[in-house]
Amino acid sequence: MAHKPRLQGPGILVLCFLLGPTLTAAQQPALSLLPVPAQVQAESGSLRVDSSFSVAFTGYAEPRLDRAADRFLRQLAQQTALPLSLKPTKNAKATLIIQTEHASKEIQEVGEDESYVLELSATGAKLTAATPLGSMHGLQTFLQLVNASADGFAAPAVTIHDKPRFPWRGLMIDSARHFIPLDVIKRNLNGMESVKMNVFHWHLSENQGFRVESRKFPKLHELGSDGLYYTQDEIREVIAYARDRGIRVVPEFDMPGHSTAWFVGHPELASGKGPYEIERRWGIFDPAMDPTNEKVYKLLDDLIGEMAKIFPDHFFHIGGDEVNGKEWDANPKIQAYMKAHDIKNNDALQAYFSGRVQKLVVKHGKIVVGWDEVLVPGVPKDIVIQSWRGQASLALAAKQGFRGILSNGYYLDLGWPAARHYAIDPMSGDAANLAPEEKQRILGGESCMWTEYVNPENVDSRIWPRNAAIAERLWSPQEVRDPASMYARLDFISARLDWLGLTHKTYYRKMLERIAGPSSPEEFAALRTLTDLVEPVKEYTRQQTAPAEPTSATPMNRVVDAVLLESDAGRHFGELVDQYLAGSCRDLALADRLRTQLALWRDNDARLQPLAHRSFLVKEVAARSQDLSALGAAGLAALEAIAKGQPASDSWKSQQLAVIEQAKKPRAQLLLIPAPAVQKLVEAAAAGGACFAAKP
Amino acid sequence: MAHKPRLQGPGILVLCFLLGPTLTAAQQPALSLLPVPAQVQAESGSLRVDSSFSVAFTGYAEPRLDRAADRFLRQLAQQTALPLSLKPTKNAKATLIIQTEHASKEIQEVGEDESYVLELSATGAKLTAATPLGSMHGLQTFLQLVNASADGFAAPAVTIHDKPRFPWRGLMIDSARHFIPLDVIKRNLNGMESVKMNVFHWHLSENQGFRVESRKFPKLHELGSDGLYYTQDEIREVIAYARDRGIRVVPEFDMPGHSTAWFVGHPELASGKGPYEIERRWGIFDPAMDPTNEKVYKLLDDLIGEMAKIFPDHFFHIGGDEVNGKEWDANPKIQAYMKAHDIKNNDALQAYFSGRVQKLVVKHGKIVVGWDEVLVPGVPKDIVIQSWRGQASLALAAKQGFRGILSNGYYLDLGWPAARHYAIDPMSGDAANLAPEEKQRILGGESCMWTEYVNPENVDSRIWPRNAAIAERLWSPQEVRDPASMYARLDFISARLDWLGLTHKTYYRKMLERIAGPSSPEEFAALRTLTDLVEPVKEYTRQQTAPAEPTSATPMNRVVDAVLLESDAGRHFGELVDQYLAGSCRDLALADRLRTQLALWRDNDARLQPLAHRSFLVKEVAARSQDLSALGAAGLAALEAIAKGQPASDSWKSQQLAVIEQAKKPRAQLLLIPAPAVQKLVEAAAAGGACFAAKP
Repeated sequence: MAHKPRLQGPGILVLCFLLGPTLTAAQQPALSLLPVPAQVQAESGSLRVDSSFSVAFTGYAEPRLDRAADRFLRQLAQQTALPLSLKPTKNAKATLIIQTEHASKEIQEVGEDESYVLELSATGAKLTAATPLGSMHGLQTFLQLVNASADGFAAPAVTIHDKPRFPWRGLMIDSARHFIPLDVIKRNLNGMESVKMNVFHWHLSENQGFRVESRKFPKLHELGSDGLYYTQDEIREVIAYARDRGIRVVPEFDMPGHSTAWFVGHPELASGKGPYEIERRWGIFDPAMDPTNEKVYKLLDDLIGEMAKIFPDHFFHIGGDEVNGKEWDANPKIQAYMKAHDIKNNDALQAYFSGRVQKLVVKHGKIVVGWDEVLVPGVPKDIVIQSWRGQASLALAAKQGFRGILSNGYYLDLGWPAARHYAIDPMSGDAANLAPEEKQRILGGESCMWTEYVNPENVDSRIWPRNAAIAERLWSPQEVRDPASMYARLDFISARLDWLGLTHKTYYRKMLERIAGPSSPEEFAALRTLTDLVEPVKEYTRQQTAPAEPTSATPMNRVVDAVLLESDAGRHFGELVDQYLAGSCRDLALADRLRTQLALWRDNDARLQPLAHRSFLVKEVAARSQDLSALGAAGLAALEAIAKGQPASDSWKSQQLAVIEQAKKPRAQLLLIPAPAVQKLVEAAAAGGACFAAKP
Repeated sequence: MAHKPRLQGPGILVLCFLLGPTLTAAQQPALSLLPVPAQVQAESGSLRVDSSFSVAFTGYAEPRLDRAADRFLRQLAQQTALPLSLKPTKNAKATLIIQTEHASKEIQEVGEDESYVLELSATGAKLTAATPLGSMHGLQTFLQLVNASADGFAAPAVTIHDKPRFPWRGLMIDSARHFIPLDVIKRNLNGMESVKMNVFHWHLSENQGFRVESRKFPKLHELGSDGLYYTQDEIREVIAYARDRGIRVVPEFDMPGHSTAWFVGHPELASGKGPYEIERRWGIFDPAMDPTNEKVYKLLDDLIGEMAKIFPDHFFHIGGDEVNGKEWDANPKIQAYMKAHDIKNNDALQAYFSGRVQKLVVKHGKIVVGWDEVLVPGVPKDIVIQSWRGQASLALAAKQGFRGILSNGYYLDLGWPAARHYAIDPMSGDAANLAPEEKQRILGGESCMWTEYVNPENVDSRIWPRNAAIAERLWSPQEVRDPASMYARLDFISARLDWLGLTHKTYYRKMLERIAGPSSPEEFAALRTLTDLVEPVKEYTRQQTAPAEPTSATPMNRVVDAVLLESDAGRHFGELVDQYLAGSCRDLALADRLRTQLALWRDNDARLQPLAHRSFLVKEVAARSQDLSALGAAGLAALEAIAKGQPASDSWKSQQLAVIEQAKKPRAQLLLIPAPAVQKLVEAAAAGGACFAAKP
C-alpha cells in the first residue's frame, strides 16, 4: 500500500490526445469489445440471436463449465429479454458450440493457457479453447458481441483469436480500511470476469481492521474488526465464486507495519508498549511488529499455516510497505538486538523480518508477494514484487531477477481519468529496454482500490468503469491504445456492468437524493447539473483539504462522496470546445450548442439556491455552484466576443481569467472540470488568432 | 380479475385540477409525509439526528418489535449515512422512545388498532401505540420526517395523532400470468410497509400458471407452472416477512374459471374434454371447473385444507370472476345436471359452485373473499366482495349486508396517472349515501397489479410510485386530496422506495440501454428525451394494438415495456403551458423555457435517427420520434405567432391541428403525452383571446 506515487508523463500526454478533434470513422470501434481481442477478423453477415438460441459443450467437461453455461445463458437472456432455454443441449447443431480441450490446473496458475478462438458466422458460432479458462473468456466476448441490430438481436460475423498479453491481471480491493461486504465483493468479481481480469488481490488486514476469522488466534478478528470480518466459510465461498470465473484469489496480510488492528488482541507482537486500539484515522502510523521477538514468528507461522490452507492460491502477499520505524527506534530491546546482530538500520531490520516471514510462507507451500519495500539485498529471487513506486522500480527488480507486477499508475482511489490509467503500460519506461528474459518477469499489473474514502455504497463507482480501461491495458496488445475508442467502449461496458449488479451507475443518483432531501424536479436537476461537472480532489489531497480530520467514522454522505471520479459531462464539453476552436470558430451550430450549455450553467445557481438553503449537504457546494455560474457567464461572454469578430480587450481577458482561476481552485473538495475549457474560449476571444482571421 | 372497468368521472376532474396554475405556498406540503397522517400539529424547532441517535422500547415487547427496531435503525443509517448504533438501548434518555401498550392478535385481524401518536420535539421523540402495528407505522412516519436540513440531518418538531381511515389497504400482485420471484415480492412488501398498506393479496393461480407447491396434489404445480412456483417454505417465509411489517397475506385461488393450469395435471376437474395445456395467451378462456362433479369438491376440500394451514389469514380468496360458461354449455352431463336440479342458468350454476366452495372454506376456518361475480342471491352474508365492477356495485353489496373492498379504479396495469387513482374514493358515488352501519361494511380497497405485460424487470415500475397515491387514499382522511401536493410527495417517496430496493427508478434506464445497444451519449440522450415523453397505451388496448398476438413468451424488451406508466416530463410540460396561458402569455421567461423545450424536441429526431438505423427496438419508435419533432415545430410556431401579437390564420391552425391529431394517435403502442398541451398553444395562437388582448 502506498500513498505517494509519482505522476506519470504518458497519462498527461494521452489526455491531450483525448481532447483533440473527434474521431475519424476509421478510429471508431467497429465492435464494442472490451478488452479488444488479440486478433479480430470481421466477416460479412451476422448471427441472429432469437429464442431458438442454444449452446452445446463438446470435449472436456467439468461442473465449472456447466455453471459457466448457466451464467452465460442467464446473462444472454437478460441482455436480450428473450425467453431462452437455460439448459445447454447435446445437439451438434446448437447455435454456439464450445469445445474445450482439457482441464486447467487444480489450483489456477500464473501463465496457464487462457486463449480461445471464436468463429462466428451467419449460421452458427464455434468457440474453441485449450482450457475452461479460455472457454469462459470466449463466452464473455460472445456476450459483448450480441446487441440489438437492425433486425433483431444479433452478433456480427467475426473470427477472433484471442489471448492475454499478461498472465497477471488483477484488481486489489482494500476490505480493511472500510469493510466491504461479501455481496459487494461478488459483484465486483462479476465485473472482473466480464473484462477478463484474473486475479483478485484481497487486502485483508490493516491498522483499521483485521478482517478474517482466525480460529487459531480469534482475538485477531474478534478484537481487531468491530465485528466486521469474513468467516472462513465466507472466504471459501468467495474463492469458489472467483475460481468459477477464472479468477485467482491472493490474500494480503500486511506486515510488519499497517498492523495496529492485530495488536488490539495481540499487543505482544508489537514493538511499542501498547495498549493498542483499532486505528480510526488515515495515514501512516507508528505501530509495527517486533522483528526481534520470536513470539512474532511463532504466531505468524501458525497464522500463515492456517490461512495457507484456506487460500489455495500459490501466492501469498505479506505487504511490507510503509514502515516508519519509529517504534523500532524507541524500543531499547530492539536497538540492542540490532547491535548484537549487526543489523545496521531499519531497512536492514525489515529485510531480516521479510526474510524470516518469507521462509514461513515457503514452509507452507506458497510464494511471497510484497510491495516494493520487500525488495532489499539478500531477499530470495522467488518473491514477486508489486510495484507501487513505479515502472523504473519494476524494471530494476526484473533486471535483478525478480518477477513483478505493476500497480503504480493503477491506483483507482487517486481519481485519475480512465485515459490516464489507460496510458500506463507495464512495458514502457525503463521496462521497454529490458532483455526478453527480463521482460518475461513482468507478469502484469493490478489496479488498486484503497478505501479510505470508499464504502460499500460508492465502492463500485470508484472501481468502475475506469477499471475496465486497466483491464484492457493488461489483456490487449500493446498497440491498442486509442483513448477515444476506449471511452466509447467504456460507456457500453459500463451499461453491461450495471446489468451484472454493479451499482456504479445507480448509487450516484440515490446519494444525490439523500443530499437533496425533498426537492422539486427543477431543484434536483440543478443539483445534478452541478454535480455532473465536478470531480473529487485528486491524488492525496482529500485528507489535506478535509473540513475536519477524516476518520473511519466520518459519514460519507457529502457531494464529494457521491459524484463520479470522472465527469463525462466535463470531458464532453472539453471535446466540444476543442472541436470548435480547431474549426476556427466557424461552426455556428457548435457555437449554439456551447451557448446553450453555458447559459444553463450561468442560470443554474439561481435554481439551486433554494435547495442550498434547506440542505446542509447542498449548502456545502453553494460556492461551487456560484463558480459554475461564473464560468457559464465567462464562456458566454467569450462566445459573444468571438461572434463580434473583434479580439476582446486585455482588461476583459484578465477579468475573465480571474473568474476562471477562482473556478479552478478546489472548493468543498471538488474540482470544477470545465474550467480549463472555458479558459480556452476566453483566450481565443482575446487572441488575434484563427477565430478572428476567419471572420468576415 | 377483471378487464373492463368503467372510466371514473372524478379522475378526469382531478386531472383538470392538476393541470391548473402552480400551487400557493399554503398548498405546498409542509412535511413530506405520505400517507398524510390523520392529525398533524406542527411545533417549532427540530430534532437533530446525528450519530448519537438512540432508540429505546418500553412497555410491551416481542421479537417482532426487535426486528422492526433493527430495520428502522438500518434504514435511518442508510438514509443519513451516519454511523448509528444499530442496537436499541435501555436508556430512558434515548432520542426516540417507543411505548407499545399490548400485543396485537396472533393472527392479524381486520380492524385491529393501528393508531399511534408521535410527539417530536427539539429534545427527543416519543412514539406511543396500542399495538406493535401502530408502533411500526409510527416508525415509518419518523423515517419520512428525517431529512437533510440546513444544519445536519433533522426531523421537524411535530405532534402527530394518526390512524387509518380504512382497515383494509391492500396491494394485489398477480404472480400467475408472469411468475414474480420471491425477492421481488419481498421488496414490494418493503414498499407497502413504508406507505402503511396492510394487505398483500397474492393471486396465485390462473390459466397461465398454478404457482404454489401442493403436497397433496403435486401435479397442480408440477404440470401447471413450468417449474415456476413457490415452495411451501417460501410461502411461509413471505408470510413471516409480511407479518413483520404489519401486513396480512390473503391468498387467491381463482375458480371455477381462470383455471386452465389446474387442468394440465387434473383434467378430471374441468368441464371440457381436455387434454389441457398451460395457457400462453391473454384474455378470457373457456376452461372452467365442473360444478356438477363431486370430485371437484373433494379435491378442493383437501386443497383448501392444505392451503388454509399454510396461510394463517382469516380470509381466503376464491376468485370467481369471468366465467364465460362455454364449457358448461357444451357439456351434456352438466346440462342434464342443471335440468335435474332446477339450476336455471350459468349464473345460478356458478352460485351453486360458490356456495359449495364457501362451505369448504368455512369448514377450514376461513372467510371467503371473491370478486363481484360471487355475489348472487342466496350467498351467505359472511363473504367479502372485492369489487372490480365499481363503487355502485360495492355500495349495493354493502346495502345487502356484505362487506366489501374496492378495486375498481385501482387497477395499476391500466396505466392511469397517479392523480386519477388518487381521486377514486371508496366512499364516493353511491357509497356516499349509505347509512352509517352500511358504510362500516366498506372495509377499504386494493390496488391490483395484473401481469400480462409485467415481469420481474418492470413490475416495480408498474406498481410504484403510483401505488403510494392509492395507499394515501386508503389511509388518510377523505379531505386529503390535493393532487399537486400528492405529486410533490410522491417524488420524494419514490426516492425513498428506491433505497428500499425497489427498482422502479433503475430498470427504466437499464432497459433503454438494452434497447439502444452501443450508442453515443448524444444518441442515448435523444432516445431518453423521446421515451421520457411517452406512455404505453392505456386501459385494455395493449392487446388490440399489439404487432402480433402477445403471449407469455413474448419478449418484454420494447420501448413500451421500458417506459414509465406516467410521464413526469409530459406532465410538467402541461403544467408549464397552463401556467403560461393562465398568465395571458405575458411571462416571457416562461415562454423562453417552453421554446427551449420545444426546440429540443424539434431537433431530437435527427439525433435519434442513427440509432434507429442500428437497433430494431429503436426503429420501432422512429415514427413516434418524428411525431415528437413535429409537435416541437408546431409548438414553436405557436409561440412565434403569439409573440407577433396577431392571431394566426385558420389555415395555419388546421395545418397544426392535423400534426397534433397525428401525434395523438398511438404508435408503437405509445402515447405522446405533450400533444394536448401543444394543441392548447396552437389554439391560443389562433384565437383572439387573452394572449393577444394583452399584447401591446
